[in-house]
Amino acid sequence: MADGEVRNKQVILREYISGFPKDSDLYISTEKTMPLKVPESSNGVLVKNLYLSCDPYMRLLMQKPEGPALFTPYTSGSVISGYGVAKVLDSKHPDFNKGDLVWGTTGFEEYSLITTPEIESLFKIEHTDVPLSYYTGILGMPGMTAYAGFYEICNPKKGEYVFVSAASGAVGQLVGQFAKLMGCYVVGSAGSEEKVDLLINKFGFDGAFNYKEEHDFDAALRRCFPEGIDIYFDNVGGKMLDAVILNMREHGRIVLCGMVSQYNLDRHEGVNNLMRLIYKRVLMKGLVVFDYYSLYTKFLDLVLPYIKEGKIVYVEDIDEGLESIPAALVGLFSGRNVGKQEK
Amino acid sequence: MADGEVRNKQVILREYISGFPKDSDLYISTEKTMPLKVPESSNGVLVKNLYLSCDPYMRLLMQKPEGPALFTPYTSGSVISGYGVAKVLDSKHPDFNKGDLVWGTTGFEEYSLITTPEIESLFKIEHTDVPLSYYTGILGMPGMTAYAGFYEICNPKKGEYVFVSAASGAVGQLVGQFAKLMGCYVVGSAGSEEKVDLLINKFGFDGAFNYKEEHDFDAALRRCFPEGIDIYFDNVGGKMLDAVILNMREHGRIVLCGMVSQYNLDRHEGVNNLMRLIYKRVLMKGLVVFDYYSLYTKFLDLVLPYIKEGKIVYVEDIDEGLESIPAALVGLFSGRNVGKQEK
Repeated sequence: MADGEVRNKQVILREYISGFPKDSDLYISTEKTMPLKVPESSNGVLVKNLYLSCDPYMRLLMQKPEGPALFTPYTSGSVISGYGVAKVLDSKHPDFNKGDLVWGTTGFEEYSLITTPEIESLFKIEHTDVPLSYYTGILGMPGMTAYAGFYEICNPKKGEYVFVSAASGAVGQLVGQFAKLMGCYVVGSAGSEEKVDLLINKFGFDGAFNYKEEHDFDAALRRCFPEGIDIYFDNVGGKMLDAVILNMREHGRIVLCGMVSQYNLDRHEGVNNLMRLIYKRVLMKGLVVFDYYSLYTKFLDLVLPYIKEGKIVYVEDIDEGLESIPAALVGLFSGRNVGKQEK
Repeated sequence: MADGEVRNKQVILREYISGFPKDSDLYISTEKTMPLKVPESSNGVLVKNLYLSCDPYMRLLMQKPEGPALFTPYTSGSVISGYGVAKVLDSKHPDFNKGDLVWGTTGFEEYSLITTPEIESLFKIEHTDVPLSYYTGILGMPGMTAYAGFYEICNPKKGEYVFVSAASGAVGQLVGQFAKLMGCYVVGSAGSEEKVDLLINKFGFDGAFNYKEEHDFDAALRRCFPEGIDIYFDNVGGKMLDAVILNMREHGRIVLCGMVSQYNLDRHEGVNNLMRLIYKRVLMKGLVVFDYYSLYTKFLDLVLPYIKEGKIVYVEDIDEGLESIPAALVGLFSGRNVGKQEK
């Protein structure tokens, strides 16, 4: 190791995968070293990563890139990337200084050189009177996703019927709480009794069901929403989306945020009920959170007071150490995690 | 026959159908008679029907009613209904007088008693310096459908790429011409060489293809839109919709207007590519023209001058006599008709 260099532990993608990910698809490498200075030629920032976030979209980057992508695809045999909270150790970028706390896209490693902070949407953390880890969740990308999808796309009104799938996840738990604060009736689906209990007793959902115990999603939705659904925040796609469409009310809105039920399939399931979108004049729109990052300050102005007053709660699942990442990421797809998953 | 009564020829639905309709599913009855006066107890209008319109949605009313419906379902063994142009023979309704020309939902028969003109959206025809038959098409429900879908839902901009399916039909031909007038690049699909020729040489589309000659809709669309599609006006659903989704550009818009490819199927085809709506932030919205009838005057103000200046042309397929209706209606599904189909 040269002077001023440190060993940099990294999470490496072994090979591109198909189907369900396994813990062994990722491994920890301690081979690399790096200097703790931004190189002369760069105007980036060098950070120490404090919290790294495991999010469902990362599964899509673990396969061979094909078609359009929203994130820089992973490379077989290289370090993976994702959202994190980090501390700036050195900066040649005018917007960031040594000592700043930031959140945004970073490497899944101890130290990262972020060469283009503008492109990676690196945000400076201004409010540190909340847990820093929140900036990987409720106050970061998932929080902005919930905010943009619910308020900007769904245009919710008091008294409307709201359904959220994957509702105990980072995005879903916040959507449900936003909906309650708006005076909506909210039901969520999740994949275990423990999560169903969390939805009702922790997040204040009006109803919840364990989708793994339901043979007929249409029947489950009719039971939970005898009057139908005005707003569906879709995190899962596939058969659940198809069943929700059957239960939409006139002028309903569906925000397509993720399709986690489909990410491990080679061919996505067909959705057969789109004709109902005509009968019911339903709006369906795909959401990518980047498009709404200009609203981040407005979002914080809404959410920070709610958090401080205890009107919004947040459940995280935090493990210690980079070594815990492979299992945590894989756990997102087996339902092992509860709440937001971080290292 | 009592005094003041006339024989009333009617088009009757023999029995509820499934699958493709046949001419023999409908028959002409001359059994009924009716008085040419609005009954004392009613505040409706009595009309003589002049033009009756065969539209694809009517297929949906020919099957046993199930789930949500936008129109009053047909009854086995009774007269069918649809859009028409008619002359008021007698009225007890304050908004209509004897001699008025009107368009709206009426019976498929020589004379109809329209008991609730408000509910049936009966419009008085104020401009008679265009062919009256236009009020079943370009100046009636299909015209308003094209207008609402294109301008109100799709929010088109100059230079955008627009695709229209069933483009030679009543709605499609107008959408294409609106798009050209807006400065868009427009391609249409249709089901014969004759229709493809019409699209390019009569309606001024930039491109067109015969979907029956294409094995791979995705490849056909990539050929026609190397830069992708900004706006899709969907009249057919199914496999074409699925292929279009693959070719949508960022922030594209899809208006779901009809799914004529699916109406004769017991179970609709699955659409597998919805994940692309997320990647590309696409908006998809179901359109029901009733919701936009308040814009009818605004619509006429736009379209009438275009028609008079020859900037919008319109192709109708008119047959003589109620007897022609069964074949005309069935023809909509075999591609026999060219342009708008009326009796």
